Amino acid sequence: MKHRVTFFPGSVTVEVDEGETVLDAAVAAGVHVDASCGGEGTCGKCRVLVEGPHRGPASTDGHVLACRTYPEGELSVFVPAGSEARAGKIHGAYANVEPEVQEPLAESIHVAMEAPSLDDNLADLERLRCALGRPSVGIILPALRSLPSVLRSSGWNAVTTIARAGGTEEIIEVRHDDDAMDVGAAIDIGTTTVALELIDLRTGKVLAQASDYNRQMVAGEDVLARIAYAEEKGPERLQELIVGTINRLLGKLCSVDGDRRSDDRFHADDIKALSIGANPTMTLLLLGLDPRHIRYEPYIPVVHEPPVVRAAEIGLMTHPHAPVYCIPGRAAYVGGDVTADVLLSGMHLRDELSLLIDVGTNGEVVLGNHEWMVACSTSAGPAFEGGEVSCGMRAMSGAIDAVTISNGELKISTIGSQEPVGICGSGLIDLVAQMFLGGWIDRKGRMVSDGSERFRNNDGAVSAVVHSGETDILINEDDITNILRTKAAVYAGCSVLLNSLDLTFNDVSRVYIAGGFGSHIDVGNAQLIGLLPDIPRERFEFIGNGSLGGAGMTLLSASARKAARSIFDSMTYLDLSSSSMFFDQYSSALFLPHTDLDQFPSVRERLKK
Amino acid sequence: MKHRVTFFPGSVTVEVDEGETVLDAAVAAGVHVDASCGGEGTCGKCRVLVEGPHRGPASTDGHVLACRTYPEGELSVFVPAGSEARAGKIHGAYANVEPEVQEPLAESIHVAMEAPSLDDNLADLERLRCALGRPSVGIILPALRSLPSVLRSSGWNAVTTIARAGGTEEIIEVRHDDDAMDVGAAIDIGTTTVALELIDLRTGKVLAQASDYNRQMVAGEDVLARIAYAEEKGPERLQELIVGTINRLLGKLCSVDGDRRSDDRFHADDIKALSIGANPTMTLLLLGLDPRHIRYEPYIPVVHEPPVVRAAEIGLMTHPHAPVYCIPGRAAYVGGDVTADVLLSGMHLRDELSLLIDVGTNGEVVLGNHEWMVACSTSAGPAFEGGEVSCGMRAMSGAIDAVTISNGELKISTIGSQEPVGICGSGLIDLVAQMFLGGWIDRKGRMVSDGSERFRNNDGAVSAVVHSGETDILINEDDITNILRTKAAVYAGCSVLLNSLDLTFNDVSRVYIAGGFGSHIDVGNAQLIGLLPDIPRERFEFIGNGSLGGAGMTLLSASARKAARSIFDSMTYLDLSSSSMFFDQYSSALFLPHTDLDQFPSVRERLKK
Repeated sequence: MKHRVTFFPGSVTVEVDEGETVLDAAVAAGVHVDASCGGEGTCGKCRVLVEGPHRGPASTDGHVLACRTYPEGELSVFVPAGSEARAGKIHGAYANVEPEVQEPLAESIHVAMEAPSLDDNLADLERLRCALGRPSVGIILPALRSLPSVLRSSGWNAVTTIARAGGTEEIIEVRHDDDAMDVGAAIDIGTTTVALELIDLRTGKVLAQASDYNRQMVAGEDVLARIAYAEEKGPERLQELIVGTINRLLGKLCSVDGDRRSDDRFHADDIKALSIGANPTMTLLLLGLDPRHIRYEPYIPVVHEPPVVRAAEIGLMTHPHAPVYCIPGRAAYVGGDVTADVLLSGMHLRDELSLLIDVGTNGEVVLGNHEWMVACSTSAGPAFEGGEVSCGMRAMSGAIDAVTISNGELKISTIGSQEPVGICGSGLIDLVAQMFLGGWIDRKGRMVSDGSERFRNNDGAVSAVVHSGETDILINEDDITNILRTKAAVYAGCSVLLNSLDLTFNDVSRVYIAGGFGSHIDVGNAQLIGLLPDIPRERFEFIGNGSLGGAGMTLLSASARKAARSIFDSMTYLDLSSSSMFFDQYSSALFLPHTDLDQFPSVRERLKK
Repeated sequence: MKHRVTFFPGSVTVEVDEGETVLDAAVAAGVHVDASCGGEGTCGKCRVLVEGPHRGPASTDGHVLACRTYPEGELSVFVPAGSEARAGKIHGAYANVEPEVQEPLAESIHVAMEAPSLDDNLADLERLRCALGRPSVGIILPALRSLPSVLRSSGWNAVTTIARAGGTEEIIEVRHDDDAMDVGAAIDIGTTTVALELIDLRTGKVLAQASDYNRQMVAGEDVLARIAYAEEKGPERLQELIVGTINRLLGKLCSVDGDRRSDDRFHADDIKALSIGANPTMTLLLLGLDPRHIRYEPYIPVVHEPPVVRAAEIGLMTHPHAPVYCIPGRAAYVGGDVTADVLLSGMHLRDELSLLIDVGTNGEVVLGNHEWMVACSTSAGPAFEGGEVSCGMRAMSGAIDAVTISNGELKISTIGSQEPVGICGSGLIDLVAQMFLGGWIDRKGRMVSDGSERFRNNDGAVSAVVHSGETDILINEDDITNILRTKAAVYAGCSVLLNSLDLTFNDVSRVYIAGGFGSHIDVGNAQLIGLLPDIPRERFEFIGNGSLGGAGMTLLSASARKAARSIFDSMTYLDLSSSSMFFDQYSSALFLPHTDLDQFPSVRERLKK
């Protein structure tokens, strides 16, 4: 028996089978409902209002949990505004890197030919190849079909777009010499957030940016939840969701239908190449590949270095034959996003020992120099991206992004100076650090309530008040526990990597911080909570969204693609799940800042004051 | 206003616009109606029976000409059985050539891999590439999608099919080790006839054969008529018709739906590669390319060496990603079929001077040796394939294929010893030669009627009786004129080529005869009519359908493909239309055997007897 479920706002209707939940229906409909726990009924975020026959536990305020509610007939579901994913600001890529344009993934070349004659009777394609100086360049059939009329109507003066894939080149378009732009898209596909830049393929200039939540979030917040979903229901739906996310971002920046010169916007057909930085699960799902085997020992992905595919093959609405290049990645949980981070940082070119930390839903750490590199991955969790924290949110308008506590008074600033609606990653780091420094929490992250109005006690569960207003913003001990787990996982990853090579943080000349919030966190506070090691401030360098930046570099340059390949080739993967050291290090790091205060001498000094 | 037209047998219904003819409707419906003159109303072959409102001249026997009849409402059209194309026998490829299998267009390789482990954590694709010894081999997305499950369910023992295109290799299928065959298709696409062989890609053995009329014949009999049709209506319909012809041939030899091992037949998906020998117009139309520009000076085709495409891109019902290789061709009227002839003959490897003659609807001639080659093309017409001759037909069951006249008595033999229904090419050569020798016609091809029952006189038009029976088979002066034009065009082409290099037929060590009828004609009779030069019999060698044979060679061997490229590269094209010599030579050759009897000394001796 089937039940019709309609979601509002948007009036999206789907049919679900008896025994499927409202959350299942939301996933099927592509409607975003927060479900941090992946539908386990534990996070309480998937609250919706329903009208119509259903069964399942009701909550006191009339809301129900979508993951615990079963339609029993035609049902209307109202998704609260707060649950709708909103676009955030992209934290720009590494400003220190000048874009180098050298054999971009797609390149348009103006070609002037002699008209044929009885004495010069080369065929159209051979004439074009000859004029291009590429006697054996390939050509796709649609371009070949248009060739005779374009060459003749243009007076043998045409613009030829060449796409590059591996070592081969192929003509994907021949057109009149017009003012159409040659645009590429660099895309960072994070588990939580997708960021996209349109880049001029001739100059390397960034023309436009957009970002949004990865709509795959309807199927769970972390990669393991996504893999579990794909394993149960196949990767197709998740592939649709990520392609849909990218297409919506493209739709924000480009016109899709009609005459390509009808307005000033880019046309989707002008996008001639795409480069993708993503973790392995996101890369596999983008290509419609089954990720299930990376969930089980020995954690083997389908591919490290995916073949270049055509945009239309995976449903992207750019030029149908635009090459889609995915940056290669080393292992099941160290993907092209990490290769991109390294590429952008330049650590693979330097003698000095560098440590690179990418804090996303997964935390990845790379240690090395131009001779060698070792990488590991830790399941950090989405705490710094707004997940698994009751008051958490992404860095977007209204997010508290900085916190100070001075003389017992808590002060906040918000993005866009808006009325605060939640706390983003940098704000959480500040908050926990400042609460710790101010004595609001102890080294285990437990609330030290003084009975004042700073704290609220609800049946023994103590929360600290971050902001009271239209919406009160509170942080509780569970939230802090989740934040400690995240920072402990990242710090432990770094420690194990160093220990396994008999090195310490003091041997590291430079620490690169990558990730969406990378350029906005306060290093002192991050050291206070033990997220970052206690080494001199000047050794830290923020590279921002390295995955996006590396995608841009590989979009624009063959030598960057070659470097990406050599980074991934030379990287050794250290599997923390098989490392006995990791659990010890992780446990030690669950304290503020760490069990072993000797590792945080400057923090110890600050705590003494 | 639209009119519905339904064709019988088959009940195929189409709608045509006011002002379109029944022949237009037949083309749109894909129903074969003979139309040798391309719808000019002159050949009288497109006779059909109609029921319903129409306008146009009616013929005496109740039939109308499809090309001159306009539907004026719902119309039923009955196509006479004789007008339906029937399959003929393929005249086998050159028996002297052993098939060489060396890097065929597609190759299946059994690969055994070590299962992955924590210490050996290469991804699936990289593991496969490594086991194949091809670290950078490409892979299509559908094959990559199936890879994880195939590798694991096969116990890391899989069969990988690699397709070759130019210098690159690509995995198009990964499957369990089964007994599925690896089959390739070699196809000769003639203007009139399409012949197909299925070939075992491992052994080179020919597994099955089929041939049929090219269904493009509904749009006219020669390449110029096809080009004119494409120019007026676009190449799409002609592309559908040739692909439909090939798919029907495949359908005769393969099962298409259902389980591939359900019966003993090949499955269409087992066909992993295709190689095509065809003239330039047929090659272009197969790929959906516009042929119009080869009709006008300077006669420039879209492409000499087409890119390898995928079967599904052009609608062929084999394995969707089977590579389709078209043998490259030199000029607008000297195509891959001629390159294939040369390849099969081996003349490009020899010191001695060879002449190659391919008699089809177009006649092509190549002169040269391992150092140089010159080629030309003459519009021979379809006389030897059954076109433009009232009693003509293809070499199929019931065709008169040999004629002798002895003591005034005409004797015939037919293919399959059937009741004769028409005369095929070899029969026409014999017939004209024997009539000439017997004094039934003079040197201009005019009937020399003795008033006997051998001849019939219909309002001053004299016909000779070839067979009287249920259906009388007659040949008239117009038929003989068309045959003389064909033979004159071929002979003149050879003469001009030799003259332009200050050579004569006596300088030629070997004459290769290619074409569908090539192995069946009587050399003496062909010399009597002046089709073949009067040189010793032992210098002639018949290579049969060289286009099909060369397609088979290039299907099976990279060195054959390389040789094809070097043949086409080294060939010079002589444009007869710009040769003042050609018209003189042609006019001189319109006599039997020739104006200049000195060129036919042995024929002169025979005529004296």
